[in-house]
Amino acid sequence: MSYTAPIKDMLFAMEHLAHLDQVAQIPGFEDAGLETAQAVLEESAKLCEGVVEPLNIPGDTQPSSFDGGKVTTTPGFKEAYQQFVEGGWQGLQHPAAYGGQGLPKTIGAACVEMLNSSNISFALCPLLTDGAIEALLTAGSDDLKATYLEKLITGEWTGSMNLTEPQAGSDLALVRTRAEPQPDGSYKVFGTKIFITYGEHDMADNIVHLVLARVAGAPEGVKGISLFVVPKFLVNADGSLGARNDVHCVSIEHKMGIKASPTAVLQYGDHGGAVGYLVGEENRGLEYMFIMMNAARYGVGMQGIGVSERAYQRAVQYARDRVQSRPVDGSVAGSATIIHHPDVRRMLMTMRATTEACRAMATTAAAAYDAAHHHPDAEVRKANAEFYEFMVPLVKGYSTEMSLEVTSLGVQVHGGMGFIEETGAAQYYRDAKILTIYEGTTAIQANDLVGRKTARDGGKNAKDIAAHIAKTEEQLRASGTAAAQAMALRLLAAREAFLDVVDFVAGKAKASPNAVYAGSVPYLMLTGNLVAGWQMGRALLVAQDKLAQGEDVAFMQAKVATAQFYAEHILTRTTSLRDSILAGGDSACALALDAF
Amino acid sequence: MSYTAPIKDMLFAMEHLAHLDQVAQIPGFEDAGLETAQAVLEESAKLCEGVVEPLNIPGDTQPSSFDGGKVTTTPGFKEAYQQFVEGGWQGLQHPAAYGGQGLPKTIGAACVEMLNSSNISFALCPLLTDGAIEALLTAGSDDLKATYLEKLITGEWTGSMNLTEPQAGSDLALVRTRAEPQPDGSYKVFGTKIFITYGEHDMADNIVHLVLARVAGAPEGVKGISLFVVPKFLVNADGSLGARNDVHCVSIEHKMGIKASPTAVLQYGDHGGAVGYLVGEENRGLEYMFIMMNAARYGVGMQGIGVSERAYQRAVQYARDRVQSRPVDGSVAGSATIIHHPDVRRMLMTMRATTEACRAMATTAAAAYDAAHHHPDAEVRKANAEFYEFMVPLVKGYSTEMSLEVTSLGVQVHGGMGFIEETGAAQYYRDAKILTIYEGTTAIQANDLVGRKTARDGGKNAKDIAAHIAKTEEQLRASGTAAAQAMALRLLAAREAFLDVVDFVAGKAKASPNAVYAGSVPYLMLTGNLVAGWQMGRALLVAQDKLAQGEDVAFMQAKVATAQFYAEHILTRTTSLRDSILAGGDSACALALDAF
Repeated sequence: MSYTAPIKDMLFAMEHLAHLDQVAQIPGFEDAGLETAQAVLEESAKLCEGVVEPLNIPGDTQPSSFDGGKVTTTPGFKEAYQQFVEGGWQGLQHPAAYGGQGLPKTIGAACVEMLNSSNISFALCPLLTDGAIEALLTAGSDDLKATYLEKLITGEWTGSMNLTEPQAGSDLALVRTRAEPQPDGSYKVFGTKIFITYGEHDMADNIVHLVLARVAGAPEGVKGISLFVVPKFLVNADGSLGARNDVHCVSIEHKMGIKASPTAVLQYGDHGGAVGYLVGEENRGLEYMFIMMNAARYGVGMQGIGVSERAYQRAVQYARDRVQSRPVDGSVAGSATIIHHPDVRRMLMTMRATTEACRAMATTAAAAYDAAHHHPDAEVRKANAEFYEFMVPLVKGYSTEMSLEVTSLGVQVHGGMGFIEETGAAQYYRDAKILTIYEGTTAIQANDLVGRKTARDGGKNAKDIAAHIAKTEEQLRASGTAAAQAMALRLLAAREAFLDVVDFVAGKAKASPNAVYAGSVPYLMLTGNLVAGWQMGRALLVAQDKLAQGEDVAFMQAKVATAQFYAEHILTRTTSLRDSILAGGDSACALALDAF
Repeated sequence: MSYTAPIKDMLFAMEHLAHLDQVAQIPGFEDAGLETAQAVLEESAKLCEGVVEPLNIPGDTQPSSFDGGKVTTTPGFKEAYQQFVEGGWQGLQHPAAYGGQGLPKTIGAACVEMLNSSNISFALCPLLTDGAIEALLTAGSDDLKATYLEKLITGEWTGSMNLTEPQAGSDLALVRTRAEPQPDGSYKVFGTKIFITYGEHDMADNIVHLVLARVAGAPEGVKGISLFVVPKFLVNADGSLGARNDVHCVSIEHKMGIKASPTAVLQYGDHGGAVGYLVGEENRGLEYMFIMMNAARYGVGMQGIGVSERAYQRAVQYARDRVQSRPVDGSVAGSATIIHHPDVRRMLMTMRATTEACRAMATTAAAAYDAAHHHPDAEVRKANAEFYEFMVPLVKGYSTEMSLEVTSLGVQVHGGMGFIEETGAAQYYRDAKILTIYEGTTAIQANDLVGRKTARDGGKNAKDIAAHIAKTEEQLRASGTAAAQAMALRLLAAREAFLDVVDFVAGKAKASPNAVYAGSVPYLMLTGNLVAGWQMGRALLVAQDKLAQGEDVAFMQAKVATAQFYAEHILTRTTSLRDSILAGGDSACALALDAF
């Protein structure tokens, strides 16, 4: 069953929720208006639908394989990646100065979603390259930039992020990989890194590993971590490839999903030391790594939205085709397609509303990112940066947690056929489970939301967002329609629940850390739900206006119905989350450790 | 990581919640007191822990295979099944008159849970045999009983349930398999059945297929379906095996989970017709099939509980071993095992509390089954039958839906390691997904709960249960402890939510079927949550009493803590479900069909 990129909904979110016209007023983005967006999305859709998506099932059934230090990707991946490179897709959001296309994230994010709807395993390679590019742009020396950036931005070379070691996952303080300074200013790197996505593969000529390591004598913990570039092949002064560096893949993992994406164990320095180059300054590695991480976290959020959209489309198709049982309302005399059954409708609507809401949230966040980085006014940059920082754990955490529910419903809509691998629905369920884990588990996102994003400023930023939501509620109430009233009612309840929890989090994070952090993931889910629902409220207002003008009636009616569904079926969850966060902090940690 | 059967918790539920002493007063169950229960559970645990569980991962990595019409099960399965047969485990709950052990379901259910914790794929074979036994006991002629029952009850022969056809899944009205009467009173059966669990295998000498088919001239729809016994090998008058019957496996499915359990496509009658024997009367097949189905549905509920328990134990073990990050409360100076982190605790407690609550609910339901079938007083039988009928969709629907969440959390606790197949956590996540689908999807259970179990009697039975819950609340309030007050508060809110929805369901099922049935699965989840939580409330009262007497302090303290967690983290979900059911009936079906 083929995939159709939801271009119309993507453009709706860009135009009406993220205000692409305002993004296009930022110097450098003058050409990035709606017409450009539409043209880019249509081109991207061609590549995704026609080339990348057809490789998704083959990637699952013929995963990347490892033999003698080499990784062979799924047949067809190398050629598809070549087309990706030739189309200039890797450089979409990167600076024109280094050969990129310099488009805003507001547009680029939609292309990332499409790529992930088509094939998460494939999309991971560019996602990691993006992270390497961000780190070099931010902290790389002119030399490093000159040597690596252009090839990364064309996609001729790919990037990888090397954080995890067997004993150091979420806890980077435990990193043991070491880097020894050499007389020529380079370093020799020694250690083992695991779970390195696309750490080895055959799709590009070189791989630029960004590696966390300790220089001898560095402080203990995260303050003693530095970031290094370690290329698979050394690069000669003329830019040509030189000797093979001393970093080698020793195995790849056997995973539940994203099987085509090779997850490598990399061994550094077993043959004398891998040549590495310091990025920025010593002992500031974590700071730079967070730049990569934040880009990657947003990207993983898009993966959640992408796989949700794909699961939704497949489920709708099945529900339209499969004939089974008479509708309870008697609307069809005999057996009908299962899309006539209310519970199937509820499942499909849950999938649809969640996906659209998360897309709206992510698109809005992308516009804030663009303004935060490129707006000429420092105040505007600051305000947008604060908003974006608040959004990253939501885009990552909420969109991916919801993708578990959406892909599970996708299997469920298929009934027994969903459990048969050839049907295709099960792969999304298996693939999605990594999304709540890598680039920081949901708990890590929630810690970030609680600590750095809420408690640190006493809940100020959170309450500012709540105030914006209250304005949307007013507009909804003023509009007077039943759908708008319903949305206003549920937004109000959700916002009040949110404010209760913000007070609890900001007020008690220091005095009762266990009680607050036991509620951190529910708080993230409440907040993500609210903020995504808010975007659906804004979307509802726009859709009503358009309907009043007779514009695009079918699409706008669907938007209103989907928004109301979100309000009455998803936003309603927030009050229960509030109750358990406020009441359940102590009971979460009450069981004695030896009683488990 | 090994499995330890939770015998203590099982006995607690039997003794204090299901009142095994009262079950043991029913004629025929005189020997089935607590001592017997303990002895049986300990023997069962030996087989499950020592023989069946070690085959779980091999079953996943070396699934059943198909070649030339034959199915070869995972190496070791045949020998383990032989031990299962020799131990007399298949006959545990079946009548002594046919060679069974005649124990109550109250005890038998715990053994079923253990077997499923150990290995769902393996446990499916006896589960299906149980269904065949139930059908023959209820509706089989003396001849059929004499020929098949004893061998099924020893487990020498196994059973299968043949309902589904390519066009007939949930909708049995569409069954096309046909049966032609023969002069000798037998029938010849022709047709294709799919998704037949253990429809073909090499673990037993014969397979007794229970098959739904239509006799020529039968009424349309489900009223024209009859039930037949079709043995793989015909049985001679002396009980020895005769000719191979004309039923053949033509393929098995490639599934996301339960890979060791062969899921067969069976072809009936391609070589002249499969010999079948009518069970009971013509055209009453569906009625008999529901007897099998109800037994099987309860059994699938136990699968959900079993896999949840297993996922919990594995996650606890990992959380005790894995060292990562400093606790937020500063209780450990450096990095600690992750069980110290509040979010990990919340995840483990969610897994634990849900599993214990569902076990308590299922054990209580089992006692009602025993009384409904065997109590000498007709009034008692009737009251228990009503209660049990109400519980079946909850045990099946709620326990399995929650097992999706529990097994997902099990992966999550493991972080990146959870996604690696060799870790073992992912298998439970993949296996569990079938549980909400087979033997009637969650929506089918929910339809049953809405239609036959709630709307039909105007909500009377539902309200009777609510009245019992209210009494537990009173006892909790009277006890005065903080934990009991917390439980009473949440039970009250959940019960009120339930009653609101019961009124909605009973009042509007006819007038607004779409709105009611759109809320059917949320109604099932609300009700299961409440009824399971009620059992945790009862358990809390018992545990407090025991603590006051200084009995079994560690266990009873853990029970109180787990019950309070359930109240504050799981029961709290019910109010949101109520809100979406009452408000969201229309928005679930509002989107135009062509707008999807």
